[in-house]
Amino acid sequence: MKMNLKTALRMITAGQEKAEELGVPVSIAVVDDGGNLVAQHRMDNSMLISQFLSLSKAYTSVVTTMPTEELGKYTQPGGPFYGVHTCRAASGICIFAGGYPVHDDGGIVGGIGVSGGSSEQDIAIAAAGRDGYKNPADK
Amino acid sequence: MKMNLKTALRMITAGQEKAEELGVPVSIAVVDDGGNLVAQHRMDNSMLISQFLSLSKAYTSVVTTMPTEELGKYTQPGGPFYGVHTCRAASGICIFAGGYPVHDDGGIVGGIGVSGGSSEQDIAIAAAGRDGYKNPADK
Amino acid sequence: MKMNLKTALRMITAGQEKAEELGVPVSIAVVDDGGNLVAQHRMDNSMLISQFLSLSKAYTSVVTTMPTEELGKYTQPGGPFYGVHTCRAASGICIFAGGYPVHDDGGIVGGIGVSGGSSEQDIAIAAAGRDGYKNPADK
Amino acid sequence: MKMNLKTALRMITAGQEKAEELGVPVSIAVVDDGGNLVAQHRMDNSMLISQFLSLSKAYTSVVTTMPTEELGKYTQPGGPFYGVHTCRAASGICIFAGGYPVHDDGGIVGGIGVSGGSSEQDIAIAAAGRDGYKNPADK
Repeated sequence: MKMNLKTALRMITAGQEKAEELGVPVSIAVVDDGGNLVAQHRMDNSMLISQFLSLSKAYTSVVTTMPTEELGKYTQPGGPFYGVHTCRAASGICIFAGGYPVHDDGGIVGGIGVSGGSSEQDIAIAAAGRDGYKNPADK
Repeated sequence: MKMNLKTALRMITAGQEKAEELGVPVSIAVVDDGGNLVAQHRMDNSMLISQFLSLSKAYTSVVTTMPTEELGKYTQPGGPFYGVHTCRAASGICIFAGGYPVHDDGGIVGGIGVSGGSSEQDIAIAAAGRDGYKNPADK
Repeated sequence: MKMNLKTALRMITAGQEKAEELGVPVSIAVVDDGGNLVAQHRMDNSMLISQFLSLSKAYTSVVTTMPTEELGKYTQPGGPFYGVHTCRAASGICIFAGGYPVHDDGGIVGGIGVSGGSSEQDIAIAAAGRDGYKNPADK
Repeated sequence: MKMNLKTALRMITAGQEKAEELGVPVSIAVVDDGGNLVAQHRMDNSMLISQFLSLSKAYTSVVTTMPTEELGKYTQPGGPFYGVHTCRAASGICIFAGGYPVHDDGGIVGGIGVSGGSSEQDIAIAAAGRDGYKNPADK
């Protein structure tokens, strides 16, 4: 099953509702299982850099099959993936919190990335968006 | 007046309706008056390259203050802007049709870019999206 | 249906047989429907640049949904896509012959790119590889 | 003696057998003594980032003449090569485990890189592939 625009927008809406609840404007991006953009929204008054980081986090979570905060732990000095984010061959990688892969029964179907808040806020919003994928009404 | 997410989504919706009328799936991106992304949607089954080109067209139309097909004329061999798209200092410039600046009374408020169809289709969809800005119900 | 390694290698083998018949060493790359590499072989004595060009052609044919020689026509000065290959936002695009999208019943499943010979040779080898996808014994 | 396609494929096969034994899908890349790609396979269901990292590891092991995990030690904060991976002039360098140079009697003949598993898995698979070079039946 491929990620589609309708599903991506449902995920973004779920994330935006969480962001409004937390009172923090963010950018949210959703990519498909090939790491390609499906949709991206930047909420009013969010940091400009969030447009780049949200997409990078969504991409990273798909190509590494893990949440970006988990990758972040592995990339600390002394860690097994230290240096991955500065390897030009792996450009576009983001190693801090706010990106999640999205799983369906058949495996990874895409990823979501959030940027603009604190790590905890980005995580909470990204998780809400990720969970928005599983809305049974649409499946 | 700054472009906001609500207005950008109304423009994208207007563009998507035109795209569906023409029967061509496209990507549509809207940027603000600083050239920064506000929202981007990739319709199902649109070309993957459209994710990059639609954003590049929207950006280009703002930073050059002209439709991208007009810029395209100036950048032909022998033209006054020949080479602008290969200037690293101007990276992200797209020189073919499908991008429009969006004007309000006070000047440029943003830009819209469309990619995925023929030049004529991209132009028609981008124009529909641009005109979606002026929906009085929302102002 | 996703491109897999077994199918990609069958396509590469079909391409290599054609290359040997033509007496020209080439590189052959196969990507999946998201533009991501599945397999790549550089035949002995092929030009070093062929490692980059074959992958770029395979990628380009997927993201533009057309053979690269067709894209090449559109990107000449005065053409509708003039400048696409120098647009940093669309980096990795190759606009000359030797790349083909691979279609199955459900749409594009991947792409193949060949580099190292003349345009005619690259086209013939890429076509042989593309046709290798449809080997009924494996389906 | 130069690395050739036949030898590279034998090395990749040896690596893939080890990967199947370990139950982890990976990408494996082999480069020649000039650091140029000879062959690369991405096993089904391996992480997408592995396509970039495996090639980067193979390349790095040749241009530094050492296993990448050894380079990784030298590039920690305070180490003698701290920063090498962020030096634009040395782009493509990977500083964590999974890449090995391949030696013959006359010196380095190429390199192999593996990505997709844990550090220990990537090391074991890369070592198996490297040892596949020395298959006497082919020499």
